[in-house]
Amino acid sequence: MTRYQLLATLLTQRIEQGLYQSGERLPSVRALSQEHGVSISTVQQAYYLLEQQQLIVPLPRSGYFVRSGKTQPPIPAMSKPVQRPVEVKKWGAVLELVNARLDPETISLGSSVPDLTQSTLKPLWKQLQRIGQKQLVSAFTYDNLAGVPVLREQIARLMVDSGCQLSADEIVVTTGCTEALAVAVRALAHPGDIIAVESPVFHGILQILCGLDIKVIEIPTDFTSGINLEALELALDQWPIKAVITVPHCNNPLGFIMPLQRKRALLTLAQRYDIAIIEDDVYGELAYEYPRPATLKSMDTEGRVLLCSSFSKTLAPGLRVGWLAPGRYLDRALHMKYTSTGSSAVCTQLAVAEFIRQGHYQPHIRRMRGIYQRNLERFTCWVRRYFPDTICVSRPQGGFVLWVEMPESFDGVQLSQTLRKDKIHVAGGALFSASGKYRHGLRLSFAMPMTPHIEQTIATIGAAVEQTLVKREGEAAV
Amino acid sequence: MTRYQLLATLLTQRIEQGLYQSGERLPSVRALSQEHGVSISTVQQAYYLLEQQQLIVPLPRSGYFVRSGKTQPPIPAMSKPVQRPVEVKKWGAVLELVNARLDPETISLGSSVPDLTQSTLKPLWKQLQRIGQKQLVSAFTYDNLAGVPVLREQIARLMVDSGCQLSADEIVVTTGCTEALAVAVRALAHPGDIIAVESPVFHGILQILCGLDIKVIEIPTDFTSGINLEALELALDQWPIKAVITVPHCNNPLGFIMPLQRKRALLTLAQRYDIAIIEDDVYGELAYEYPRPATLKSMDTEGRVLLCSSFSKTLAPGLRVGWLAPGRYLDRALHMKYTSTGSSAVCTQLAVAEFIRQGHYQPHIRRMRGIYQRNLERFTCWVRRYFPDTICVSRPQGGFVLWVEMPESFDGVQLSQTLRKDKIHVAGGALFSASGKYRHGLRLSFAMPMTPHIEQTIATIGAAVEQTLVKREGEAAV
Repeated sequence: MTRYQLLATLLTQRIEQGLYQSGERLPSVRALSQEHGVSISTVQQAYYLLEQQQLIVPLPRSGYFVRSGKTQPPIPAMSKPVQRPVEVKKWGAVLELVNARLDPETISLGSSVPDLTQSTLKPLWKQLQRIGQKQLVSAFTYDNLAGVPVLREQIARLMVDSGCQLSADEIVVTTGCTEALAVAVRALAHPGDIIAVESPVFHGILQILCGLDIKVIEIPTDFTSGINLEALELALDQWPIKAVITVPHCNNPLGFIMPLQRKRALLTLAQRYDIAIIEDDVYGELAYEYPRPATLKSMDTEGRVLLCSSFSKTLAPGLRVGWLAPGRYLDRALHMKYTSTGSSAVCTQLAVAEFIRQGHYQPHIRRMRGIYQRNLERFTCWVRRYFPDTICVSRPQGGFVLWVEMPESFDGVQLSQTLRKDKIHVAGGALFSASGKYRHGLRLSFAMPMTPHIEQTIATIGAAVEQTLVKREGEAAV
Repeated sequence: MTRYQLLATLLTQRIEQGLYQSGERLPSVRALSQEHGVSISTVQQAYYLLEQQQLIVPLPRSGYFVRSGKTQPPIPAMSKPVQRPVEVKKWGAVLELVNARLDPETISLGSSVPDLTQSTLKPLWKQLQRIGQKQLVSAFTYDNLAGVPVLREQIARLMVDSGCQLSADEIVVTTGCTEALAVAVRALAHPGDIIAVESPVFHGILQILCGLDIKVIEIPTDFTSGINLEALELALDQWPIKAVITVPHCNNPLGFIMPLQRKRALLTLAQRYDIAIIEDDVYGELAYEYPRPATLKSMDTEGRVLLCSSFSKTLAPGLRVGWLAPGRYLDRALHMKYTSTGSSAVCTQLAVAEFIRQGHYQPHIRRMRGIYQRNLERFTCWVRRYFPDTICVSRPQGGFVLWVEMPESFDGVQLSQTLRKDKIHVAGGALFSASGKYRHGLRLSFAMPMTPHIEQTIATIGAAVEQTLVKREGEAAV
């Protein structure tokens, strides 16, 4: 990058972060030249670039001003899914999404893979090296069915931050959060049973239920406060629902954190109808607020909450180290774990345990929280800039996925076909419903470094969205 | 060990290996003294020890003779399980077995954990070290749902030895053979369906079926040739059986290798009744014969065989690297894999792939085959020596488990309680049946180095068996 480009980037960031507000006067050319120790012409070139990007406007004899930008798009309205139990399908589309992340030439905004480039992860590789060097026989033999004890102790310690007072014996290590969820569901429900979920809901949860022949009922969900409790209560009155699965913190795909009193109310409702709650907390540690929100599990005195989590979003998904705190379903969960994979790979468990024990976990999480929050600012700015004005976007309070909703007429399937030619992959909203909703939605991941290439990608997606909408309107007019 | 003990051990081995046959004259004291360069009194002490152990008898003026030992115990008769579908239970007893292997003070002959002490495994640790050293990002990210491509290529190459011509795309890597089996069953069957199994059958298979609410029908099984095909055909006529699960090579728990023509006949039967075959080949590479036997999969032209295997018995169970070659059920198997664990841990997959690619696999397997075969000789010798004459034992043709059957009146549950006080754990035969059979059976593992401590353990078990039988007879007499 040349000097003027660097300066332009810096100014863009300041504008995007609101340091210079819409309509505000920017510093004079002379002032900037002095501030940054660059020539007058460098500043002029930078301003010219920003002018071309329609970020600023020059006013004769007054200087440069921040262009009155688009306003923040609204938050989508509460979802309105189909209010009856349905069977899950759509495996083909999910498999396509899963495979898309493997093509090195495709930019995948569809998968939620964390940023693995940070130096704070390095001690984890060192632990693998140490296991190999010391030829630890313990890494090669069967371990405890519930997971390596040293890891379960460290997990129990971490969980104190979310308000949980658990012993290592109450935790079962799993092969990723997927196995935690699958084991939790199998501990509770049988084929044909009904489980309630948020709507939209993480497609992996839908597929797990599909694989176990369990029906889902999607409950209307608010984009800032989570699952609608009145709607859930109506559903509980009407159907023999076995459990509810919720992602209350940094929800995937909506990003909300469920307010404390609503979590309490959900627990009360579960008690009243005597159902279990499966709490997926896999993004919980990535809440931008500090301290992180308290889990439903931490408020549960009856053991009816089965907490599922993993290190896949906080450390690295390839480790496949997750866990389940199954409450009063412990015996049954252990049985299901035995019949699912026996035990989980040992060396990754040992590496993670030592990584945490040596104090590397918290600094890494602090850094990642900050990075994802800054990424979100840049990312939503670009979405605002390059997408049509008619969109709504979620307001993530943690994690690294954004939900974008186009007008109802929008066809997400068509969009992803268009984008495939450009080697861009996004997660179409239809994946997040079992009842055929959200074709007009998109989930975009913003975990990767926010490079100009990503900005270009957003611009391409935005243009494709615009085109799809225009085409639709044209067709409607005909 | 002193000199005379060493010599005694050597002579014992020669007798056990049949170098000195029953009734044969042993070398003179003088000849042995010269052969081994030890004193006359050392040889005399060694012979005295063997005399005490009732292995040899002195005949005045003629020297020492090998005592006409017990003859080899007979092979158990064909099993006679209950001939109707039943539900699986017994999780409590299996959990106890699984936990017993964790107590460092308990000698577990009940678990089938391979010998992890051999130097030929060292390159595998080196691979883990390399991954850590090179900070391979690929080890930390999500990989292909079907498993790391380089590993699948190496597995496809290995499978050529068992007669299979598969491409990497036809293989799905799993978290151990347990997940391979569970995914295979879920790809084929639904709750309430019936699956046929050998009898006795590996308790893990029973528990997997239990976890999926699938009923089993146990088929009579011959101790040298495997599942009885006439009995299987009768069952197929009578019940809507979805699939048969078989462990045709180095069967767990019986040790047989199914003869080629019987494997062909099983496949023909499966075709005729249009059922699938789940072939568990996890011990197949440990057949004592060379080349290793051909899999059912290799003879299958219709994709109806789902081959399940892993590196848990050949390399190390803690890796949790298994695989499934699901034939025509590939799509459904991938779906079930996704809903079970997503993908499997990456670093162990990469380590195994490189271990094979560098040529370390075959030498290791050759060594382990030899070790287990020699272990078996020592082990059965000890069982013959220390167990009552009334037992029957299996004739393993590979792997490292032995099946021992006591008279029908024998109570294996009582035995394991007695042995628990001695910190010895064995797998009671009752675990290997869903219909309450084989209380008089035991499965013993002989993977560990055959030390005097193991001999002592066999002696303790043998004495406990004797005592239980005597007590029973006493009770019966009263």
